[in-house]
Amino acid sequence: MSDDNSLQTGMVTCTAPVNIAVIKYWGKRNEDLILPINSSLSVTLHQDQLKTTTTVAISRSFEEDRLWLNGNEEDISHPRLQSCLREIRRLARKRRNNVNPDFDAAALSHKVHICSINNFPTAAGLASSAAGYACLVYTLARVFGVEGELSAIARQGSGSACRSMYGGFVQWVLGEQDNGKDSLAQQVVPESHWPELRVLVLVVSADRKPIGSTSGMQTSVKTSLLLKHRAQTIVPKRMTEMIEAVHQKDFSHFAELTMKDSNQFHATCLDTYPPIFYLNSVSQQIVNVVHRYNSHYGETRAGYTFDAGPNAVIFMLEQHVPEFVQVVQHVFPSENNGGKFIKGLPVDDTFLSEELKQDIGLNPMPNRISYIISTKAGPGPCVVEDPSQHLLDFDGMPKKAC
Amino acid sequence: MSDDNSLQTGMVTCTAPVNIAVIKYWGKRNEDLILPINSSLSVTLHQDQLKTTTTVAISRSFEEDRLWLNGNEEDISHPRLQSCLREIRRLARKRRNNVNPDFDAAALSHKVHICSINNFPTAAGLASSAAGYACLVYTLARVFGVEGELSAIARQGSGSACRSMYGGFVQWVLGEQDNGKDSLAQQVVPESHWPELRVLVLVVSADRKPIGSTSGMQTSVKTSLLLKHRAQTIVPKRMTEMIEAVHQKDFSHFAELTMKDSNQFHATCLDTYPPIFYLNSVSQQIVNVVHRYNSHYGETRAGYTFDAGPNAVIFMLEQHVPEFVQVVQHVFPSENNGGKFIKGLPVDDTFLSEELKQDIGLNPMPNRISYIISTKAGPGPCVVEDPSQHLLDFDGMPKKAC
Repeated sequence: MSDDNSLQTGMVTCTAPVNIAVIKYWGKRNEDLILPINSSLSVTLHQDQLKTTTTVAISRSFEEDRLWLNGNEEDISHPRLQSCLREIRRLARKRRNNVNPDFDAAALSHKVHICSINNFPTAAGLASSAAGYACLVYTLARVFGVEGELSAIARQGSGSACRSMYGGFVQWVLGEQDNGKDSLAQQVVPESHWPELRVLVLVVSADRKPIGSTSGMQTSVKTSLLLKHRAQTIVPKRMTEMIEAVHQKDFSHFAELTMKDSNQFHATCLDTYPPIFYLNSVSQQIVNVVHRYNSHYGETRAGYTFDAGPNAVIFMLEQHVPEFVQVVQHVFPSENNGGKFIKGLPVDDTFLSEELKQDIGLNPMPNRISYIISTKAGPGPCVVEDPSQHLLDFDGMPKKAC
Repeated sequence: MSDDNSLQTGMVTCTAPVNIAVIKYWGKRNEDLILPINSSLSVTLHQDQLKTTTTVAISRSFEEDRLWLNGNEEDISHPRLQSCLREIRRLARKRRNNVNPDFDAAALSHKVHICSINNFPTAAGLASSAAGYACLVYTLARVFGVEGELSAIARQGSGSACRSMYGGFVQWVLGEQDNGKDSLAQQVVPESHWPELRVLVLVVSADRKPIGSTSGMQTSVKTSLLLKHRAQTIVPKRMTEMIEAVHQKDFSHFAELTMKDSNQFHATCLDTYPPIFYLNSVSQQIVNVVHRYNSHYGETRAGYTFDAGPNAVIFMLEQHVPEFVQVVQHVFPSENNGGKFIKGLPVDDTFLSEELKQDIGLNPMPNRISYIISTKAGPGPCVVEDPSQHLLDFDGMPKKAC
């Protein structure tokens, strides 16, 4: 790395996906290392609809580590950010000593500039920290020439970030070791395994900001007797069943396990003291819509899951998406306000039968769903090769557009 | 019993109370005998505010058993009604043979007329079946000259009815026998033990009729893995703790256990498949109000519990009632519509400090609480001695006023 083009060779841009758990992670056994009390399993969502893009630059001319998120400079001293930076630099040092003695030793002491943006509004209430930390760790690793297992580092940024390090269907294995070295994400199958699976994110207008997941799960671990039982006894069996359902592409089993696990997670939130409510009246209505829709057909055609907020994520097979979207629009009519109600993968128009409308039979709740993001399973983090896509300018400062 | 005044001697009127469980009953191990999967504990509410009144008449001139509820004749063939009638007649026969050979044997073959009314609107969503079956069994027993343990018969009408057979604090012991003979209600302490305890029923305007408890608990027993754990492992310890808290009049422990058990019951409803939601957005807000109120004072001054519907029952000590009622009216302002917002025991007016208002700090939800019933613990079923209070006329038909 020469002095005059240090920034050019020391700048990398990557993207990373959001993931949605179908077997939920809720509760840590170790707060510092972010070790969970149970294994979890997620679907990585496609980056065409939801992704984080991060540019990392290193330069001897930088005076300090700096961070910009969605256009605003943020405090980089956050312990979890520092954990990720420290771990990547440690691996780089180790790698230089063992594998790659040509790597510019000086780079290890250079400061970094990090710039990160999401292609979806934070207001959508989609957990962006998983994509954010996955992208940060993946990009840092590229800049510092680190390869191999990175999910344990992403995990130390945000637990569920480890699952965003892979595409398709991903499990985060609980692990047994106290140092967390075996608490890792593993791909179960790639996204190509189940191309018919579709994902609809129903973005619900929230009336209040819910309790954050970090403090929420701390209180749950301390106070919920049901959470303990869930983690120790129920989830291990459910993980095996879920992996089997994914391997078999058994949609109804997959969707039922997904719904049951979401409900059980929210049950443990309610068993927390004081109780935590993430599901509002719109979420409850979405649950009712899905069960009535399935009941109309006598088979499980749709499955919901809810994270630490009111938004629903619905799984379906491709052929049922148009009708289900009509059902959602029937129960949650939208005035649109100029924006598109359905974003992402196109959804065909279709006919809604009177019989189905009658079987759904719920009172309409106008404008309570802001919009739907139509997407599917997708790949893990990627390097962006086109240098024009860097979020940082040649001097290591955010480009105007960010 | 002579022919010409058979109705006079064969008519009895009694009243029975509503009870509210603080350790919840949810799930049967035997549907026919109504045997629960766990013990439960309740507070019997005072009949000055909430009661059922029932008149039973027997006469050789009646051609069939008949039943009037709140002014409408109902089908008496319901299996649970029949269970209660059959069991009382069986005990009467046994008693005649063993104890009371003077009892008019003919009365055993006479038909009954039953008339029952509640002094609270069914629309209030208060479980009336417990008071109703307790009153029926208690009154039938008087008419047929049956004495002794009656809670096992009331239990066969409606599980929680067995707890309305006693005043004060009552436990329903799970029992071990398959025939249910040891699944009985027992008074823990009478209402006089804790005279300072007050009860506020917050009647919430419901937007939809919730799932009935009978079918709800069947689905929960079949599908909720958390309910099983709760019944087997958590409730036995909680019963011991609750009985101790009641004996000690330890309000904060009593209220905390009450809230935790209510939350856990609703958690198992959410863990049911399909999930059952009894708490609506108003219920959730009441939960938040109580926790913020307690948090403002740094001690547990109020405790909530919710049954299979959105209404809240709040426990407090007498001295805190006026302020808490102001807090409720602050968050749930009512236009009143001519009716009184606070019914029952009078509540003094008081001042609400700005500090408390700020600490509560929730958005007002106007007209979402219809009214408050202010009451306390009270006695078990009573005989009404005044014959003018009979609900049936001399000819065994409902009086016009009913």
